Amino acid sequence: MIGIGPGSPRQITLEAVDAIAATDVFFVLDKGSRTSELTALREGMLAAHAAPGHRLVAVPDPPRDRSPADYEAEVRRWHTARVDAVEAAVADHLRPGETGGFLVWGDPALYDSTLRILAQLAERDGREIDVEVIAGVTSASALTAAHGIVAHGVGEPILTTTGRRLASTPDGANLNQIVMLDSDLAFRATAAADDIVYWGAYLGTEHQILVSGRVADVTAEIEEKRAEARTRLGWIMDIYLLQKAR
Amino acid sequence: MIGIGPGSPRQITLEAVDAIAATDVFFVLDKGSRTSELTALREGMLAAHAAPGHRLVAVPDPPRDRSPADYEAEVRRWHTARVDAVEAAVADHLRPGETGGFLVWGDPALYDSTLRILAQLAERDGREIDVEVIAGVTSASALTAAHGIVAHGVGEPILTTTGRRLASTPDGANLNQIVMLDSDLAFRATAAADDIVYWGAYLGTEHQILVSGRVADVTAEIEEKRAEARTRLGWIMDIYLLQKAR
Ligand SMILES: C[S@@+](CC[C@H](N)C(=O)[O-])C[C@H]1O[C@@H](n2cnc3c(N)ncnc32)[C@H](O)[C@@H]1O
Ligand SMILES: C[S@@+](CC[C@H](N)C(=O)[O-])C[C@H]1O[C@@H](n2cnc3c(N)ncnc32)[C@H](O)[C@@H]1O
Repeated sequence: MIGIGPGSPRQITLEAVDAIAATDVFFVLDKGSRTSELTALREGMLAAHAAPGHRLVAVPDPPRDRSPADYEAEVRRWHTARVDAVEAAVADHLRPGETGGFLVWGDPALYDSTLRILAQLAERDGREIDVEVIAGVTSASALTAAHGIVAHGVGEPILTTTGRRLASTPDGANLNQIVMLDSDLAFRATAAADDIVYWGAYLGTEHQILVSGRVADVTAEIEEKRAEARTRLGWIMDIYLLQKAR
Repeated sequence: MIGIGPGSPRQITLEAVDAIAATDVFFVLDKGSRTSELTALREGMLAAHAAPGHRLVAVPDPPRDRSPADYEAEVRRWHTARVDAVEAAVADHLRPGETGGFLVWGDPALYDSTLRILAQLAERDGREIDVEVIAGVTSASALTAAHGIVAHGVGEPILTTTGRRLASTPDGANLNQIVMLDSDLAFRATAAADDIVYWGAYLGTEHQILVSGRVADVTAEIEEKRAEARTRLGWIMDIYLLQKAR
């Protein structure tokens, strides 16, 4: 399980480079053509670091209901379908004695289901799967580095959350929030005018966009740039840090 | 400002390797001999990646009161003394046209004051300091990778906090907590017997220790291993993930 960082081909660790070189078959959980640019980035990393003779196996992503009645149940159903797909791909392509690898954006521990898929696969038939996880730079670190900032005031906590959970952050945990997986700029419904937002899209890629400032001052700019880029490129990956006004 | 990851010489990014190679003078905020092993790790990275002719300047860390009456005030006072020390070191050692670099453990955005020091330095005399931040793998990512786990249940938030703040985490933000800068295993006062703790010390180094399990089952083992290693090596760096029992 190889964390390859949030987007830039240079934001990968030496440890990940070593692991890529030691992998025989790469399994890629493919989200389809929308993110073909991300697929190209990943293939560039393999071209640069993988051993000659390595193989690449695309595991098609099962269809997913994006606005289900029961969000958690739909995520679980979709995970099971992905386990089926990975199981079939491994059975078909990994030969005895070979090492399989999964390239994961950012860090594998953060909002990525690949580790859970392998755990479920191991549970299925009591098979031993020897999983080594290579940590990666998170998109949160890419965001704060691009803005040149520390994520928090001296000694303060940071909450990492998702767009759909942002509104349920309790008071006292909302001083500094990193918000990921937010398809609709959820901070517009929760932030005060004087809160500060540091927003970034396509971090580490040639399309990188950064906007920061008081929520009242920059929300319209973020909305516009986000909508424009999404239309122009056909996909978006964005993240932000929301800091309570002090 | 170069994030060099949490400890392993291979847990550094290609971007950091490039930045090290492009730096003339490295300023090292030195915490003294207690962590001479960390200094050696850092020097190994320079030997491997820095350009011939680079210089290394140790900036001695001003003394700090570890149990002050007013914690925030003491941190501020200590920061100012560090700004003085960095200002003097830069004035003495960085020649016109040269690039200075700071090597920062883990990621520069997380519980590290170097970025704040440079911001204060720039404010002092209205000087322009062109700071580029290179993101690094955090010790949190090293912890979860070493344990082979995802940091959270599906879609859940994660709070990153410090030992001294752990007890003030509000309900609803305590499902998954990454605890850093904890000199006294603060979870012993806050966790329930059935909560799960994933603890790691000296991550990425040859001394790495991992313990995980139910709080009631593993707390004594963590206490013992932590005390033993700390006595044997003379220093400790540890971090843990605390997950509420479901
Ligand atoms: C499925 S999660 C994966 C997170 C990843 N494991 C990590 O460590 O960053 C995808 C979310 O990460 C964020 N993200 C990942 N890469 C990004 C990038 N290059 N630029 C902006 N946001 C990114 C976005 O919030 C996106 O919705
Ligand atoms: C001053 S903070 C710096 C954090 C760093 N900037 C990062 O991104 O991980 C130091 C704390 O980080 C954690 N830490 C850093 N490196 C570590 C390692 N190799 N093993 C265990 N904990 C580590 C410990 O909790 C320690 O008290």
